[in-house]
Amino acid sequence: MNGIWLEDLHATFRTGLGLPQPPPGEALVRVLKAGICNTDLELLRGYYPFTGIPGHEFVGVVESSGDWHGRRVCGEINIACGTCSQCRAGRPTHCERRTTLGLISRHGAFAEFLMLPFQNLHPVPDSVSDDEAVFTEPLAAAVEILEQVHVRPTDAVVVLGDGKLGLLCAQVLALTGCNLLALGKHAEKLALLAARGIRTALITDTPPFRADVVVECTGSSAGFDLACQFLRPRGTLVLKSTYAGSLTVNMSRMAVDEITLIGSRCGPFAPALELLARRRVEVRSLIQARYPLQAGVQALEHARQPGVLKVVIDMA
Amino acid sequence: MNGIWLEDLHATFRTGLGLPQPPPGEALVRVLKAGICNTDLELLRGYYPFTGIPGHEFVGVVESSGDWHGRRVCGEINIACGTCSQCRAGRPTHCERRTTLGLISRHGAFAEFLMLPFQNLHPVPDSVSDDEAVFTEPLAAAVEILEQVHVRPTDAVVVLGDGKLGLLCAQVLALTGCNLLALGKHAEKLALLAARGIRTALITDTPPFRADVVVECTGSSAGFDLACQFLRPRGTLVLKSTYAGSLTVNMSRMAVDEITLIGSRCGPFAPALELLARRRVEVRSLIQARYPLQAGVQALEHARQPGVLKVVIDMA
Repeated sequence: MNGIWLEDLHATFRTGLGLPQPPPGEALVRVLKAGICNTDLELLRGYYPFTGIPGHEFVGVVESSGDWHGRRVCGEINIACGTCSQCRAGRPTHCERRTTLGLISRHGAFAEFLMLPFQNLHPVPDSVSDDEAVFTEPLAAAVEILEQVHVRPTDAVVVLGDGKLGLLCAQVLALTGCNLLALGKHAEKLALLAARGIRTALITDTPPFRADVVVECTGSSAGFDLACQFLRPRGTLVLKSTYAGSLTVNMSRMAVDEITLIGSRCGPFAPALELLARRRVEVRSLIQARYPLQAGVQALEHARQPGVLKVVIDMA
Repeated sequence: MNGIWLEDLHATFRTGLGLPQPPPGEALVRVLKAGICNTDLELLRGYYPFTGIPGHEFVGVVESSGDWHGRRVCGEINIACGTCSQCRAGRPTHCERRTTLGLISRHGAFAEFLMLPFQNLHPVPDSVSDDEAVFTEPLAAAVEILEQVHVRPTDAVVVLGDGKLGLLCAQVLALTGCNLLALGKHAEKLALLAARGIRTALITDTPPFRADVVVECTGSSAGFDLACQFLRPRGTLVLKSTYAGSLTVNMSRMAVDEITLIGSRCGPFAPALELLARRRVEVRSLIQARYPLQAGVQALEHARQPGVLKVVIDMA
């Protein structure tokens, strides 16, 4: 892993050079906390052609003068052009010319400051702590599942994977009142869900069965295969993961069993903040470690260890 | 390829042994014509563990005494148990204990006679010829797309592949009034669609573009990749093909672009017969060759040649 980006960051943003000047329409945001996502780790492994400052999960305070000054915010990470065919069709998160905070052509949140268009910002309610607000982006990604799929109370639903995203997806799906089972490999992580009244089981202890909806959150080829096995004919497989490299898939089975596979990425921030404010989802227990920005490389080293939950970079 | 099944057939069904006695609830049907499907060819290549008489596309006459006697029929190919969880959930084509005509644990239509439950039979309207009625099963499979996906008049839709099934799917999708483009490799086959007012192009001549819905009918790995390329973010990929072996797929792109993939198999017979009766779909031009049952092996040899359209086995 390469520490250059942190050096770059400090060279750019620290004292000597003064604060950066955001372009018109964009806010300068002082980062309070930033979360490390698996996508950041994939970025640093070279799976994406991004060379800037990573980080897209954050809570911060607006430094720019004006109405937003001093407000605590989180921010949607895709910056859309507003004029391409995807934007005009109402799909700004799929804008053909988008930049994405810490992922595509835009420096991210593992820094003292970041810049985002004002229209991407969401005020954080006072009742939501910084530790909670830093989960808004991944929680919104979990909420996206319910934007895409009608999960019925009578549905048998499996969330596969007890990583950071799996634990959020399971909590969001539990809100529907569906017949939910969260499967993972780590008893101690599943216990976080069990404490919320969610039925859990170790993957290794699970007999074969058929669910109406399976949410694949493992990011592994084996997880994908297992997700297919747990799905009934005409069931829905929600693909919440990205995968390193290509998968080898029995596509004939998809046709024969008339499976619906739905890829799922970024989601809506407003309902995610609502869920946090109303304590419908518990995220603080997912924080496994905290590092100051100066120890950012160690934070990433920690986050990439197998089985580690959320590592937060704390600017305070 | 193995000709034994034809010998078996004749040994079983011909004169000396008399007519077979169907079990209660099943009709004895004298086959008039049977169509060769790509699945039959995959069967004979050993991709499925079936060793009986193949053939699932047919038109015939009911021999059994009773109300159905003498009626010209086609028949749904999945025989459901009526009591398993799939049947009780209203998915009889996915019955856990199903037999399938010429495909799973039940002799098929490449024979003088076949047996099917009366409840699987559909009377063929007088206005539909035998040559047309033999297409009911694959046409129903094309109609299944519209059962599964809401295709809007404003949608840009691509049908990929100009084989037997692709030509049927393109005609069915054209009925929606969508902005349709049929892509294939064979100018003479695409001409059959162009004659019906459907816009067509050779795959090799097609510039990159983004469709709302792509229907994959090539059955090839290259076709699947191309289908993905032609799809817009949040677009729908209908998988109408089965594939020999597994495919290597960039599943991360499915998640990032939030693609919906829908596997599609057997469809409803009644609307397919309606489309034939009302001349909304033209199928006769898809018949490329006819063979008598005695030349069944040659018929299959012909059908497996690249680019060949429908080969019909004619019992008359």
